[in-house]
Amino acid sequence: MIFSPIKSTKVYEQVIEQIKNMIVDGTLKRGDRLPSERELVENLEVSRTSVREAIRALQIMGLIECKQGEGNFIKENFENTLLEPISIMFMLQQSDPEQILDVRKIIETETAALAAERITEEQLDELKKLTESFQVCRNENENVKFDKQFHYKIAKASANLLIVNILNAMSSLMDSFLEDARKKILIDKENVMVLANQHKLIYESIRDGNGAKASEEMRKHLEFTNEYIRRNV
Amino acid sequence: MIFSPIKSTKVYEQVIEQIKNMIVDGTLKRGDRLPSERELVENLEVSRTSVREAIRALQIMGLIECKQGEGNFIKENFENTLLEPISIMFMLQQSDPEQILDVRKIIETETAALAAERITEEQLDELKKLTESFQVCRNENENVKFDKQFHYKIAKASANLLIVNILNAMSSLMDSFLEDARKKILIDKENVMVLANQHKLIYESIRDGNGAKASEEMRKHLEFTNEYIRRNV
Repeated sequence: MIFSPIKSTKVYEQVIEQIKNMIVDGTLKRGDRLPSERELVENLEVSRTSVREAIRALQIMGLIECKQGEGNFIKENFENTLLEPISIMFMLQQSDPEQILDVRKIIETETAALAAERITEEQLDELKKLTESFQVCRNENENVKFDKQFHYKIAKASANLLIVNILNAMSSLMDSFLEDARKKILIDKENVMVLANQHKLIYESIRDGNGAKASEEMRKHLEFTNEYIRRNV
Repeated sequence: MIFSPIKSTKVYEQVIEQIKNMIVDGTLKRGDRLPSERELVENLEVSRTSVREAIRALQIMGLIECKQGEGNFIKENFENTLLEPISIMFMLQQSDPEQILDVRKIIETETAALAAERITEEQLDELKKLTESFQVCRNENENVKFDKQFHYKIAKASANLLIVNILNAMSSLMDSFLEDARKKILIDKENVMVLANQHKLIYESIRDGNGAKASEEMRKHLEFTNEYIRRNV
C-alpha cells in the first residue's frame, strides 16, 4: 500500500480559498469592498495574522487594492496582475530576453487576426487615430507612447482578456529586460517611417476585416522590430 | 506646475524589492535557501510582520517554498507559478472558458513550429513514446495523462520557458473551468483514433524538422478538440 503525503494547507491559504469561493459564487465581484479584517477574523474563525497574510498575498498579485481609510477592494481591472509573478519568475529562470520577443510575436500575430474579426467601430476609430499619431515629426518618447497604445488597442480588440493580460505582462517585461528597446528603434527616423507604414498596413487589414492579412502584416512588423532589437539592444 | 502623486511603498513591498535585488545580482538563485526571518529582520531593519508578509506573498506566487524545519527556499521550477493569479483573475473577469481554448490554440500552433526547430534527440524519443502510448485500447484516464504529457513535451521542446509557463497555466485553467473536457473527448473511442492519428502527424512533422507542417497539424488538432469541447462540454 502506498501512502500519499497529506498536503498541509496553511491557514492563510484557507482564507484565500474562502475569498475565492466568494468570487466563484458571485458574492464578491470586481470593484467590491472585501469584508473588513475584523469581519474576516470573526467569520472564518482564524487569527488576524492569517487574514493579513492572505490579504497581502492578494494585494501583491494585483487582485485587490487597499484604499486608505476605506478598506480592501477587489480591483476593477487586472491588466497588470501577472506582471509581478512573471517578472520575478523570469529573473529566476535566468531567461533570455529573446524569449519575450518570441512570445510577443507568437501571440500578437494571431491577435491581429482576431482583432480583424472582432473590432468595434469605436475601437477602429481609436486605432486609426493612433496609426496617424505615430509620425516621423514627433520625438521618440511620444512615438513610444503611441506605439504601445497601438499594440494595446489591437489586443483589446481581440476581445480576449487573457490575451490582454499576457501581452501586457510581455510588454512590461520588455520595459524591464530590454530597457529602452522601443526608444532606441524610434530614435532612428528611418525606422519611424518604416514602422509607421507597417502600422498603417496592419490598421488597414484590420479595418477591412482581413484577418489573414492583418496577421501577416503583424508578423512582418514584429520580425522587423525583433531583428532590430536583437542587433542593437 | 503639476504634482504627481507620491506612490506609498509599503514595507513588505520593500522587502520583496530587496529579495528581487538579491535575485538580480545573483546572490539568490533557484533552489537557494533564503536568509532566515530573523536575519532578514536584522539586515533590512524592518518588523518581523513585514518580513512574514513578504514571504507569504512570494510563497503564494509559487516563487518560494517553505520546507518544514529547514526554512524558505527559492523554488527549483516555476511551472505552476502563474496558475494562482491567473485563475483568480480569470474568475474575477468572468471570462468565457472559450478564451482559454483560443489562447491555447494561438500559442501551441506556433510552439509546434519552434519545437520542430529546437527539439533534442532525447526529447524526440520521449515524444515518440508518448505518441505511441496514446491508444484506443487504453482507458480514458490513462489517455488523458498521455495527452497532457504529449503537449507538455512539445512546449518544453520550444526551449522557451515563458511558453512553458503560460501553457501550463492554460492547461490548469482548462482543468478548472472546463472540467473533464479532456476526459469527455477521450471516452469516445472514435475520437481517440482521430486524435491518435493527429498526434502521430504532429510528431512526424516535428521529427522531420518541418515547422510549417507541425504548426499546421497542431492547428487542425486543436481546432478539432476545441470544436468538440464547445459542442459537448
